This record gives sequence, structure tokens and C-alpha cells, in this order.
Amino acid sequence: MKSQPDGELIGPTIERVQAPDPAAMAAARHHQTRLTKPAGSLGELEELSVRLAGLAGQYPPPLVTPASLAVFAGDHGVHAQGVTPWPQEVTAQMVTNLLKGGAAVNAFARQTGVTVTVVDVGVKEDINPQPGLVCAKVRGGTRDMTVEPALTRQEATAAVEVGITVANQMVDSGARILLTGDMGIGNTTASAALISVFTGRDPGMVTGYGTGIDNATHVRKIEVIKRALRLHGPDPLDPVGALAAVGGLENAALTGFILGGAARRVPVLLDGVISLSAALAANALAPLAREAMIAGHRSVEPGATVALAKLDLAPLLELGMRLGEGTGAVLAYPIVASAVRVLHEMATFDRAGVSEVPEE
Amino acid sequence: MKSQPDGELIGPTIERVQAPDPAAMAAARHHQTRLTKPAGSLGELEELSVRLAGLAGQYPPPLVTPASLAVFAGDHGVHAQGVTPWPQEVTAQMVTNLLKGGAAVNAFARQTGVTVTVVDVGVKEDINPQPGLVCAKVRGGTRDMTVEPALTRQEATAAVEVGITVANQMVDSGARILLTGDMGIGNTTASAALISVFTGRDPGMVTGYGTGIDNATHVRKIEVIKRALRLHGPDPLDPVGALAAVGGLENAALTGFILGGAARRVPVLLDGVISLSAALAANALAPLAREAMIAGHRSVEPGATVALAKLDLAPLLELGMRLGEGTGAVLAYPIVASAVRVLHEMATFDRAGVSEVPEE
Repeated sequence: MKSQPDGELIGPTIERVQAPDPAAMAAARHHQTRLTKPAGSLGELEELSVRLAGLAGQYPPPLVTPASLAVFAGDHGVHAQGVTPWPQEVTAQMVTNLLKGGAAVNAFARQTGVTVTVVDVGVKEDINPQPGLVCAKVRGGTRDMTVEPALTRQEATAAVEVGITVANQMVDSGARILLTGDMGIGNTTASAALISVFTGRDPGMVTGYGTGIDNATHVRKIEVIKRALRLHGPDPLDPVGALAAVGGLENAALTGFILGGAARRVPVLLDGVISLSAALAANALAPLAREAMIAGHRSVEPGATVALAKLDLAPLLELGMRLGEGTGAVLAYPIVASAVRVLHEMATFDRAGVSEVPEE
Repeated sequence: MKSQPDGELIGPTIERVQAPDPAAMAAARHHQTRLTKPAGSLGELEELSVRLAGLAGQYPPPLVTPASLAVFAGDHGVHAQGVTPWPQEVTAQMVTNLLKGGAAVNAFARQTGVTVTVVDVGVKEDINPQPGLVCAKVRGGTRDMTVEPALTRQEATAAVEVGITVANQMVDSGARILLTGDMGIGNTTASAALISVFTGRDPGMVTGYGTGIDNATHVRKIEVIKRALRLHGPDPLDPVGALAAVGGLENAALTGFILGGAARRVPVLLDGVISLSAALAANALAPLAREAMIAGHRSVEPGATVALAKLDLAPLLELGMRLGEGTGAVLAYPIVASAVRVLHEMATFDRAGVSEVPEE
């Protein structure tokens, strides 16, 4: 039995998450057979368009423009355990880089027409308010999960609510698809711990090389996660508790962001392993939230593949990427947008005067 | 020994195709390590950016904007053998649909910012001149390859030269990447025959269900291809002769289009199985042309996978598509554009003041 989540926003948000509309899905499925192309020839894009109709509860589903990426940034107390060679201050430095437009995801977003917003939900250092930055710091980084819970339940709840609020603000501002991104040195450790909790897989099966650590660090990283899980024994049926025990502030905020999108019936395009750990938490809180999720890509992190399987989501891209920031989601965005445009813009056989295959 | 290709354009175009520039590739590879991201974290996009630098012979390689798709359209005499249930007039009807912007590739191209041009190199019916159409009909469809060669050597040569000319005109007009597309009822039959010739694989291994034929038609289609190959015995070392014997006018034009792009050191983003059959012909004429090729997607047609393996190209997308028109190339275009933008737009560690992993 799931424990009741805390906070004023989480419960009502979960209650708003609805099942897909079968009539809208049937309409999309029928329309796909009337478009000027062989039936089924658009492969995964056809089923994606059907899912988006079901999510929106209308046919055709709305175009997924404008598109809005939120990069949730936070630091991690477990950094003290030597799980990564990168200095912790890189989180704040990369937030500045993102705000200046110099990160990989900025280049991708300019190409694909996605707006980038950075949300400071837990960076250790102070970040000056500036355009493109949402200041919503719950706490300057988590505590070391190998010593104590990374967050209190109240802090984890507050971070989830930051994500819900950002999702609501973006949808209120016109966004018709939400993209997930992250920045946080050490956050593949928290994400692997969460994926282990929600899938029941051993940490050794879901922990990867992150930014590119050596074998000794990889062994240490797995041991650190095992120690934290033994210490806290997080319960997958208490997702907020699990986020508090071994999660990160950005993981918790992403959980709320995904729930928020699902509650508004807006698709949420997922990035890599950090986003997927949050997707598992969102799915544990509200199983129907899965219907709003689109997997952007398959990160090379092993936890990504385990999480995708648990969520039964097939990723659109598989390009050997492991950068985070939302890069995989942004790169997949034109595919999602194209899948919907087909329903709005393609001619039917009748309208175009194109002959069909004769009935046998 | 290769026979000398005919025509005034083909020989000089082949001679212009150059080897990649190792210095530009080394510069790109080095720069990738200086950008604000973990080394290797952009996966296949990093190696793609290196290839594009080598092709252009400069670092950074030019941005791949504007992007220009050519959809080469033609009809096939082998249609008389019942290789598809679609009426032959659908080729002309779909050309009209493409010119009106109602086809799938038009919707994709609007999303991704690609210009669509249709080239009538061999449609059986007359198509009225109109904006977006290049009238370059060599012949109103091929002959039935099971009875006689599909084209004379002169016709095949002329079609290849149409492709070269279109490539040159597009590059002269500013295009910095060429995308391949096709339209032609029956052209998966010609393409499977060509792929069999250039890879040495049995027609049964490279012939698929095209637009979605039934099993009986599939068996007939394989038998038709085998019969044509037995009749003509096309020589893979005489690519123009093979295109004449069992190819299509759009396959031949695409061969020239790919060669033309390679000769101008402009990348050519390939669509599915029709484009790949032409890529094999271009590769047979000028092996270095392969260096200009980028595989957009893996079509579900079995010949696509065989051709990709022969060309040693890894496709960017794998979405279960089999529509043609250039849809797979257009959908992959933002990935290619993003890979190059990274080299132009991302900050380096030094410039952004981002700390690096300390040397061990």
C-alpha cells in the first residue's frame, strides 16, 4: 500500500492524472490509414501519434509547439565519497554555461526550436538571478546518503513541488510539450540508487561510468550505493521517502515536473538516466503518469535500459550519448513534433486524389 | 577493372571526389575534447562531426544549413509483372501531392527546416511545370526488366547526369547538405535488384514487402528479380550498365546526386532502400564517395540493412519506417545539424571557466 504523499500540491496533482482517451486513440489510428502513405509505413511515429491523441483526449492532438526544456540543477553530498573525479563546483559553473548558451543542449535547442530554462533547485553555490534561471533552491545540495538521508521528507516534498510548479507555469505560458534535463555532479549515483529501489535490481546492474570514471571509481560507486541502500532500506511503495533517502534535489524536482505534465495532459519527453530515475518515481506515485512519457533516447548508462524496460518505453534515439542536460530529449523533439504534424498536415487519399490499393 | 563511364559529366565528377582531410579530422577530434562535456559523451555525434570536418577539408566544417532535399520520381516497366498492388498512376498523383505539400515528407521538412524539390526524371505521365518541380524527364518510365534492359546505357547515363546537375545547382544555390528522396511505384523492386548486384547477395535476402505486399506478391517479386538478373547478368564493376539493366531512372539520378554532393565536398544524407541502392552504385563508381554519405535511418526493408553493412554506415535513426520520399533523411537532419553546431557554438572549458577532471 502506498503511503500518502506529503505536501499540498502532490496529492491533487496525482489525482488529476487521467487514463488515455480510447476514442481519441481510435480516431488517430483510423486517420493514419487514410493518409497518403502505405499503412504502417511511418513505423513508431504512427503509434506515437496515437498515444499523444489518447493523452490529449482529443483528435487530432495539439501540435507540440512551443516546446519547453527545464534543466533542474542540484548538488550531491555523496560527492564526498569519491564517486566522480569532477569537482563539485562544476555544477554551478555549468549552470552559468547553460545560461550563457554555451552547453551542448543549448546548441541542440537552437537547432530544434526548444526553449531552455534552468531551475536551481539545489545547487551548493549561490547563482545570481538572471534571465532563463528559475531560483527555487530548496537546499544547497543533498547530504551524504552514506551517512544520513540525503534529504528530509519535507525537503524532498518541496523539491517535488518545485517541479510541479515549473510544469504548471510552463504549460500556463503556452508550452505544449515538456522536456526533461538535469545538471548535477554526482547525480548518476543518486539516479542509480533510485533505479535500484524502483526496479529491485542490484546496484551493480544499474550503475554505469557516468561522465567516464575509471574502474576503481566504478567499483567504489557501486559500493557507496549499496551502503546507502543498506543504511536506509528505502521502500519503493513510498516514492517520496525513497527520493529523500537516496535521491537528489533535481531527481525529486524532475519527478514533480513529470507528474505536473501528466496532470495537464501534456507530453513529457524524457532525457537519460537521471530523468528516467525520476520517471520511475513518478510512475510509482501515479502509474497513469507513464502515459504522458515519451522516451527520448537510450543513454549508454545501464540504469537507463533497466528503467526503460520497467516503464515499457521504447526510446526514439540510440546514439551512444551520455551527456544529460536534456540533450537526448531535445534531439528527439523533432521526431515527436513530426509525428503530430502528420495528423494535422498530411493529405488523405480522397483529398489528394491519390488512388488506393484495390480491395482484394 | 571498371569500364569507363559514359557521358561528359560522370567522369569529371568522379575525379573530383577526394579523400577526407586528416588534418581537419584531427582538429575536430581535438576540439571535441576541449568542449564543456565529458569526453565521448555525445556518442555518435562526435564521430559524425569528425567525418564532416574531413569531408569539408576544414575545421570547423561549415554548418549544414540550408538543407535541400531532392525527391527523384520515376516509373517502372516491371510494374507489369505484378510486383505491387498499387496502380502505376500513383507515382504522378504523389508527385502532385508532394508539390502541394501534402505528403509525409513535406510535414517533416516543415518541422526540420528542409527545402523540398521534386525532380521528374522518369514519371510515365506528364507533370505540368510548376514551382518546386525540376522537369528533367529522361524517359516516361523504364522498360520491363524481365523482358529487356530497363534503360539503354545512354538513358541511364543521362539520368545519372540529371542527378549530378541537380546536386551542382543546389550547392551553387547555397545548400550545405543534400538529402536524398524518391517516389516511384515499383521502385523497391529495382532497388532490390541493384542491391543484389552490388552486394552479391541472393534476391531473396534483399527483397522486402515494400509498401506492404502480401506473401504471394513477395514470392513473385523475388522471382521477377531473379529472372531479370539471369537475363542480363549485370556486372557490379560496370555500375552504369547495372543501372541500365535492372535499375530505375530515379535510382540512376540518385546515384549522380550522391556523386555530385561528394564531388563538391557536401554531405549527402541518405534515406532508405532506394537511396541506398543508389549509394552502392555511387560507391562502385567512386569508392571515396562513401565518405560524403550519412545514413539517415534503417528502413525495415531487408535490402537497407544489407546495403548499410556493405557501405559500413551506421544509421542515425531506427524507427521502423518504410515510406521513402526522403522521410528518414529529413527526420535525421536535425541530428546532423546539431552535431556540427556543437563545434561552432559550444564553449570550451577555458572560455567558460569550467573546471576539468584533474590529471591523475
